[in-house]
Amino acid sequence: MSLTTTYTVSGMTCGHCVGAVTEELQNLDGVSEVTIDLVAGGDSPVRVTSESELDREAVRAAVDEAGYQLVPAR
Amino acid sequence: MSLTTTYTVSGMTCGHCVGAVTEELQNLDGVSEVTIDLVAGGDSPVRVTSESELDREAVRAAVDEAGYQLVPAR
Repeated sequence: MSLTTTYTVSGMTCGHCVGAVTEELQNLDGVSEVTIDLVAGGDSPVRVTSESELDREAVRAAVDEAGYQLVPAR
Repeated sequence: MSLTTTYTVSGMTCGHCVGAVTEELQNLDGVSEVTIDLVAGGDSPVRVTSESELDREAVRAAVDEAGYQLVPAR
């Protein structure tokens, strides 16, 4: 089974930022794919494919570790 | 002897970009220090300290390699 969830991350400005966030999210258990549509300096959609539902706090911590902010779900 | 020259580089948007340009310039022979004042998305001054005068084409190639553009001197 695989599940794709879309998160929103703010503060990324370039491909290096995208790479940093991708790397941190790929380190989470069960994550198989990360796709980011960069909106430079704005809110970028981040799609994460995983084997099972991810803990939102773990996702937030990974994004923080990369140096960016997870935008609260509306 | 050491000489400090200021170049202008465009296209950098974040600290990762600064790191990439710094790394490429530090690889040039004789370069001892690189200091960049990031102007995100604009023209950033890049100060390079070296033992002797650098070849501008070598500097341009290093900046290109990092993925950015050396702005022509006015």
